Amino acid sequence: MLVLGIDPGSQVTGLCAVRRVKSGFQLVRASLVRTDSDDPMPHRLLVIHTGVAEAIAELRPDAVAIEKIFAHKSAESALRLGQARGVALVACAQAGLPIFEYNTMVAKQTVGGSGRAGKAEVARMVERLLGLRDALPLDASDAAALAITHHTQGAFAARLAGGAP
Amino acid sequence: MLVLGIDPGSQVTGLCAVRRVKSGFQLVRASLVRTDSDDPMPHRLLVIHTGVAEAIAELRPDAVAIEKIFAHKSAESALRLGQARGVALVACAQAGLPIFEYNTMVAKQTVGGSGRAGKAEVARMVERLLGLRDALPLDASDAAALAITHHTQGAFAARLAGGAP
Repeated sequence: MLVLGIDPGSQVTGLCAVRRVKSGFQLVRASLVRTDSDDPMPHRLLVIHTGVAEAIAELRPDAVAIEKIFAHKSAESALRLGQARGVALVACAQAGLPIFEYNTMVAKQTVGGSGRAGKAEVARMVERLLGLRDALPLDASDAAALAITHHTQGAFAARLAGGAP
Repeated sequence: MLVLGIDPGSQVTGLCAVRRVKSGFQLVRASLVRTDSDDPMPHRLLVIHTGVAEAIAELRPDAVAIEKIFAHKSAESALRLGQARGVALVACAQAGLPIFEYNTMVAKQTVGGSGRAGKAEVARMVERLLGLRDALPLDASDAAALAITHHTQGAFAARLAGGAP
């Protein structure tokens, strides 16, 4: 099963596709969708939508794992993040993909860190889990952790419901 | 010129297309995109995106006027509203439409009311401006006020820049 982790943001959206293999997890692709803060917001949202839709079309993941959002510093940043997250979710829904939300703190703990680990620390842990020699782009590390979390927790959920392990 | 006013929301998105005519303003279409709160959010966002995209395809507006958002009750509601607003903006950007943002308080004042007027009061003022006999759907009244505001302020802005009145 291929899981696409998505860490949406108005400036950078991290995408990371991870496959479960016998030896653990395999990185299929990590990429970033960057927007130019000088561009008007509708154009930036279009760039995010196109980037996520193209990644889905190329990678054909079986499921999407996205950050679950609880609290925010300010209503203004929540609005901006909401817009980016909304267009990412629409791209997934248009492709008919099942979408799972995970708390970022839980995702960080799943890959072996503290719930408050920074991007660099998460990247190191994820690189170890994925057996990478090269560094993962920092902004893709949370997306990778989300994808790995779905591989771990999705299987557990299926077992709980009586399905095959 | 045909202006599509959009008042986005995760539950109800108001759409109102208004044309400027010699005698004032003419309502071309008012409609609502409703989502079912029992549905998962990605599906609801897809319904909003599809509803806005279909309205644009049918009406072929020249410009979009959308609510400018400043402050919010809570970060949680800002995130929800941001998601709905983001997918509405993407549908407009995909159609290549110019998008203008107006403060709702300014829009309410433009149609002749107090900046704190409720939907019912705004609807009555808009119905008078549009010469309507039938009542406008309440949730479309802010969208109508936004479209009328762009007709008013857009012309003024063009004049300021030296264009024809």
